[in-house]
Amino acid sequence: MPDKLIVQKYGGTSVADIDRIRSVARRCLETQLAGNDVAVVVSAMAGETNRLLALTHELHGEVNDREVDVVVATGEQVSVGLLALAIRALGGQAQSFLGHQVKIVTDDSHARARIRSIDPEPLRACFREGKIAVIAGFQGVDEAGNITTLGRGGSDTTGVAIAAALHADVCEIYTDVDGVFTADPRVVPEARQIERISYEAMLELASVGAKVLQIRSVEMGMKYGVPIHVRSSFHHQSGTWVVPEEQAMEHVLVSGIAAVRDESKITVRAVPDIPGVAAKLLSPLADAGIVIDIIVQNVSRDGSTDMSFTLPRQDRERAIAILRDQAGELCPDDRLAWSDGVAKISVVGVGMRSHAGVARRMFQLLSDEGINILMISTSEIKISCVILEKYAELALRVLHEGFDLHLPPEDRASP
Amino acid sequence: MPDKLIVQKYGGTSVADIDRIRSVARRCLETQLAGNDVAVVVSAMAGETNRLLALTHELHGEVNDREVDVVVATGEQVSVGLLALAIRALGGQAQSFLGHQVKIVTDDSHARARIRSIDPEPLRACFREGKIAVIAGFQGVDEAGNITTLGRGGSDTTGVAIAAALHADVCEIYTDVDGVFTADPRVVPEARQIERISYEAMLELASVGAKVLQIRSVEMGMKYGVPIHVRSSFHHQSGTWVVPEEQAMEHVLVSGIAAVRDESKITVRAVPDIPGVAAKLLSPLADAGIVIDIIVQNVSRDGSTDMSFTLPRQDRERAIAILRDQAGELCPDDRLAWSDGVAKISVVGVGMRSHAGVARRMFQLLSDEGINILMISTSEIKISCVILEKYAELALRVLHEGFDLHLPPEDRASP
Repeated sequence: MPDKLIVQKYGGTSVADIDRIRSVARRCLETQLAGNDVAVVVSAMAGETNRLLALTHELHGEVNDREVDVVVATGEQVSVGLLALAIRALGGQAQSFLGHQVKIVTDDSHARARIRSIDPEPLRACFREGKIAVIAGFQGVDEAGNITTLGRGGSDTTGVAIAAALHADVCEIYTDVDGVFTADPRVVPEARQIERISYEAMLELASVGAKVLQIRSVEMGMKYGVPIHVRSSFHHQSGTWVVPEEQAMEHVLVSGIAAVRDESKITVRAVPDIPGVAAKLLSPLADAGIVIDIIVQNVSRDGSTDMSFTLPRQDRERAIAILRDQAGELCPDDRLAWSDGVAKISVVGVGMRSHAGVARRMFQLLSDEGINILMISTSEIKISCVILEKYAELALRVLHEGFDLHLPPEDRASP
Repeated sequence: MPDKLIVQKYGGTSVADIDRIRSVARRCLETQLAGNDVAVVVSAMAGETNRLLALTHELHGEVNDREVDVVVATGEQVSVGLLALAIRALGGQAQSFLGHQVKIVTDDSHARARIRSIDPEPLRACFREGKIAVIAGFQGVDEAGNITTLGRGGSDTTGVAIAAALHADVCEIYTDVDGVFTADPRVVPEARQIERISYEAMLELASVGAKVLQIRSVEMGMKYGVPIHVRSSFHHQSGTWVVPEEQAMEHVLVSGIAAVRDESKITVRAVPDIPGVAAKLLSPLADAGIVIDIIVQNVSRDGSTDMSFTLPRQDRERAIAILRDQAGELCPDDRLAWSDGVAKISVVGVGMRSHAGVARRMFQLLSDEGINILMISTSEIKISCVILEKYAELALRVLHEGFDLHLPPEDRASP
């Protein structure tokens, strides 16, 4: 019996050329030789998905299309064939699998399909023959056999889904950073690598700008209890484990801090405070595929209220045009305002559930530096503040130090 | 009811870039708008198959491998997605199909698989919805669902096989020449386009160097009675029809003349004239994948004989090494000779069956120009002579004129 069943997922930069593919092959073989069954999920070679999308874009503007998926799914197909050859060239045994060959069945939403089921039997047969299974990430087939893709970062989700289907001991996500950090180390040099983090906190961190994992892969890991190990493909040191909350040994107040830049804020003043107004303002934007983030509405005064929301800066111009066109009676020009230079700073930590002091501390730390808070939004384990973007780096550093994240968890001021 | 069911096949140069893909899309739509059901088979964009093979070659020297097929099959997958998008961009309806989606089931010989069956039902459903079916050439799946490919030029075979499965009225093979010619027009400017030719004559012409059609596609057309129309993608004039012999109206003595260059000749002198010697000499070469062409053996003299055969020049060095290594006792160095600069000139025509004069005429025409014949091989409808390569062009022109191929069929000297 093999020691463990390990799923490894390698991204596009890890398989960017033949030499790096050989490195990945070596790592897969080392893992197998240590006594484990190994399934590897790979992305397209770096740049390949964009090249293929550019080809389709000359003929068709949209991404969510059956035929666009047919074209872009080839990127991962090339990777699995080459990695299987590389493993064999090193003396190992390997077999590649495409979405339709492992029956990764999804819904039929092209370019953003969701996995419904996976047939683990072909992979188990592969292990029984002593082979490493090399699986194309990012792709599946719908019930009718049409090729689908899972959206950007979808290979992470493939990796975790394969691990769930195989009841694997771990899904290792290999990346070009050492793991998940308390803040972006490029901005906050004192940022520390997180050893263990709960699925919940990881979800919040991912949703506010920590781009190490696709959000859906974390959701899937949480749903099926798959331990996810985010680690570097450049060395063998341990990275960050994403695990159930009870196993996330670091019972810290704050896990990490993240920033989302390039945001815009739109405000509509003095809208009537009656049911249906928010829907009337925001539905046309949702229909146009514009993702609204933080929404705040002031208390009513004289039967009217102010409403503000943030959105990616690239969508702001289109959003204003849609509001004027489809909700003009609610937002005449003299009551419609916007500003482009804002950022969202978020503090995330499961410890917040039981400690009310985090919000107050966050506001105080920002205030001490003269950073004005434009909007506030909170969830059970996250507090987000919208501030002027020029203060984003300063805010990250101040909050990082203020919450003692530069210290090991055991040395931090108790909540 | 639609007028006809037409299968069209476009090669790599016809889909080399987005503009050319748009041209193909227009032609498909024209054909559909004229009242026909249309299935289109496409190759990979020009250069793509070689690019993909080069990637695999860095990891694995051989071509006939499961994983190499996984990689190279992506070329056609990109083409079908793009062509379907291009047809829709012009206002038409289209759907792409991969090998596994039309169940193009083959044997499991990777890189040279042979088609066993095709399920026409998905294509018929596509026609019922008013769509053009866009099918990936060159690829299939074996019984176990592994991806296979059909070898160079395999998309021709896919086209004819799809036409056979659908009982199509015609399989149109689009190419960058106007059709099949009585000789290569680049060498013989007087060469005439052939209007109709029988499968048998086309097979012989293809086997001796007329590269317009893959041989297996002609065999398949003959087996299932699929009329093949070889024509230009640059204009709308009729090309060459490949049809059953009774429909090949031109009852000509000679259909065409072709040359194969870059051949080598190997001679083994004084081998014992006993059973099994030929097999002993040639089996090791076949095992090494070296394709031997013409084989001649002299009449026996004193219990021994001379044996000569031709082969592609690129294989000659390897062949000599194999002969020395595995059949050294039959061909010691003083009885083994070779020369590299030879070519094979062939005259093909179904009329030869009933007219013995063609061979004599061919030898006389070559002799009149002082061209020495090194080897002769004949079939029912073909005569091939091996000559020094430096005389190949002269021989082509002399034979072309000597058999009156520069004249319309009705004006040629009667057999």
